Amino acid sequence: MKKIVQIGVGPLGQKIVKNTLQREEIHLVGAVDPDPEKAGKDLGELCGCTHMGIPVSRELTSSIKGRGADVAVVSTFSSLERIEPQLAELADAKLNIVSTCEELSYPWQTQPDIAQRIDKVCRDSGVTCLGTGVNPGFLMDYLPAVMSSICQDIEQIKVTRVQDASIRRIPFQRKIGAGLTAKQFSQRKKNGHLRHIGLTESVHMIARALCWRLDRVEETLDPVVAARLVSSGYKDIRQGQASGVEQYGRGYVGEEEKITLHFRAAVGEEKSHDKIEIVGTPSFTSVIEGGINGDIATAAITLNAISAVLRAESGLKTMLEIPVPSFSGRFCV
Amino acid sequence: MKKIVQIGVGPLGQKIVKNTLQREEIHLVGAVDPDPEKAGKDLGELCGCTHMGIPVSRELTSSIKGRGADVAVVSTFSSLERIEPQLAELADAKLNIVSTCEELSYPWQTQPDIAQRIDKVCRDSGVTCLGTGVNPGFLMDYLPAVMSSICQDIEQIKVTRVQDASIRRIPFQRKIGAGLTAKQFSQRKKNGHLRHIGLTESVHMIARALCWRLDRVEETLDPVVAARLVSSGYKDIRQGQASGVEQYGRGYVGEEEKITLHFRAAVGEEKSHDKIEIVGTPSFTSVIEGGINGDIATAAITLNAISAVLRAESGLKTMLEIPVPSFSGRFCV
Repeated sequence: MKKIVQIGVGPLGQKIVKNTLQREEIHLVGAVDPDPEKAGKDLGELCGCTHMGIPVSRELTSSIKGRGADVAVVSTFSSLERIEPQLAELADAKLNIVSTCEELSYPWQTQPDIAQRIDKVCRDSGVTCLGTGVNPGFLMDYLPAVMSSICQDIEQIKVTRVQDASIRRIPFQRKIGAGLTAKQFSQRKKNGHLRHIGLTESVHMIARALCWRLDRVEETLDPVVAARLVSSGYKDIRQGQASGVEQYGRGYVGEEEKITLHFRAAVGEEKSHDKIEIVGTPSFTSVIEGGINGDIATAAITLNAISAVLRAESGLKTMLEIPVPSFSGRFCV
Repeated sequence: MKKIVQIGVGPLGQKIVKNTLQREEIHLVGAVDPDPEKAGKDLGELCGCTHMGIPVSRELTSSIKGRGADVAVVSTFSSLERIEPQLAELADAKLNIVSTCEELSYPWQTQPDIAQRIDKVCRDSGVTCLGTGVNPGFLMDYLPAVMSSICQDIEQIKVTRVQDASIRRIPFQRKIGAGLTAKQFSQRKKNGHLRHIGLTESVHMIARALCWRLDRVEETLDPVVAARLVSSGYKDIRQGQASGVEQYGRGYVGEEEKITLHFRAAVGEEKSHDKIEIVGTPSFTSVIEGGINGDIATAAITLNAISAVLRAESGLKTMLEIPVPSFSGRFCV
C-alpha cells in the first residue's frame, strides 16, 4: 500500500484521482490545488466520484501533515521554471515525485541548471523525482529508445503521432488552437502558449539513449487548417479556421537529420496513429493504428510509474533510468 | 571502452563477434569454445573477418588471464541446467554476464533453485548476470511489458510472432523441424529438442511485470505442414513434410486465459509479423509488419545490454529490472 497526495486537480489530475480508486495498493491521502473555487471541496465530489473525505487544500503542509504520504503526483504546470518551487517543497517534505510536467521529462539539455537544482534537492532528501506521461515520456521518446535495443546500427529514427483531438480533454483542444482564426493562431503561437510541449525534450531523450551528440535541435509549428466545417470537437470549427497543430522536432548531427518527430493533433483528424520508423540494421516500422488516447494513457503511466520510482535511486530521473513501469494494479515488489 | 570475452563461437556467437567490430567501445579480448575443431584458430578468421590475433581457447582461464575483461557474452546452451557451471565459473572470475540462454531470460518460476544459485554466486562476486535476446527477452515479453505501461487496466495480452524461417541461420531451421516427415517430427518433439525455447519463460515474465499470479501455464507444439514444395530454406521441403513449428504459450488465472503467446516459425511463411494486442483501458494493437529478424536482433540486443548490465546491481537480473538497453554504438555513461 502506497499513500499518495495529488497536486493539481485540473482535468488530468481529476482523471488520475479517479484511476486511483481502481488501484488496490494506491491510496489517496491528500490533494492540493491553488484554485479558491476548489479549496475545501471534497476531492471525490470534485472529481465526479463518491465522497472521499479528503478536502482539497490550497497549500501542501496541511494536506500531508501526519498522513504518511510516500509519493506526490504532480499535474500542475508544463513549465519547469514554474514547477521548480513545488518540486522543491515536495522533496523537502520527503515525498517521492511523479509528475506530468512536460519540460521535466528530459530537462538535462534544455534547462540544465534547474535540472541540477531539482536533482540536488531530491538527493539531499533521499527521494526520487520522475517526469513522465504518454507524450513526452513514452510514445515519441521512451518507446523508440526501447525499440532501438534490437538494432546493431541506426542511421535515423522517425516518429509520427497523428491524432484526432475530438476525443481529448477540452484544455488540450484549446492548447492546440482548435477554432482559432489564422490571425488568432499566429498571435497565440507568438506568445508561445499554443503548442504541444515536449518535442525538443523527446529529441534530446532519444539522442541520450543512443549516445548521439546532436549539433542542433529545431522545432516548427504550423496550424492544421479546416477544409470544411468540423463539429466533432468541444466547439464548431469553421472552414479556414485552425483545427489543430502540426509540429516537427528535429535533431541534427552536422547537417544530417538523425531524429524526426512529427506531431499532428487536430479536431476531426481522420487517421489517428502512432508510428516509429527505424532506419538501420534491422530497419523496421512499428505502428499502432488508431493511436493512443493521450489523456487515458498519461493518467495511467503516471500511476504505473510509482512502483518503479520507489525502486530507483534518489535524484531527478528520466524514463531511461528507471525499470519498466508496466501496468500493475497492485505492487508485487 | 569495455573488454569482453565471447563464450561460444557457433553461428550466433560468430555474429556477435562480427558486430563487436562495428562498436567503438566494445573490445574483444578472448573467446572460448569447447569444439576441438575451433581450438587454436584465430577468432576473426573463424568468423569470416580479418585476423584478430585472438586464438579460440577450449577453456576460460587461459583466454581471460591478464586481459582485464569486464563482461562475458555467453551463447552456448539453451538449457539453464547445462549453462549453470559456465555462469558460475564466469562469475567466480568476476565477469559480468550477458547471455542468450533462453531459459535464463526468466528462470524464477520455472527453475527457481538454479536461479537462486546463479543469483547468489553473482552477488558474492559483485557481478551482474542477464539473460536476453530478441525472443525470449524482447518481442514476446519485455516489449509487451513496456507497452502495458500506458494502461489503466488490462484484461488480456496476446502476442503473435509469425516468421519466415528461410532467412534464419541453419541451426534455427533445424531446430524448428524444417524438412522432417510427420513421424520424424513427432519423434523429435517427444525428445524435447524440437522447439522454440522460451514461451513459458515469456509468459512468466509478463505475469511478473503485471503482478498477475498465474494458476497455470501451458505450452503446445504442432508442426506447420508444407502444402507444396518449399525451396526457400537451407534444403528443399516436400509437400506433407514439416516446414516449421506452431507453438502456443498460455497463462491462466483460474480458467481465464490472461496471456496468449503465439509463435509460428516456418520456412516459406508468407506474412512475417510481430504483433502485440492489449485488451484493456486503452485497448490497442501494435504491429511490426515483416517482423524482426531474430538472428540480427539477438546479436544486437546482447551487445546493447552490456551498458545497462554494468549499471545494474549485482545478482541475476531480468530485462524487467535493468534500464532500457537501447542501441548505442558507444557508451555514454
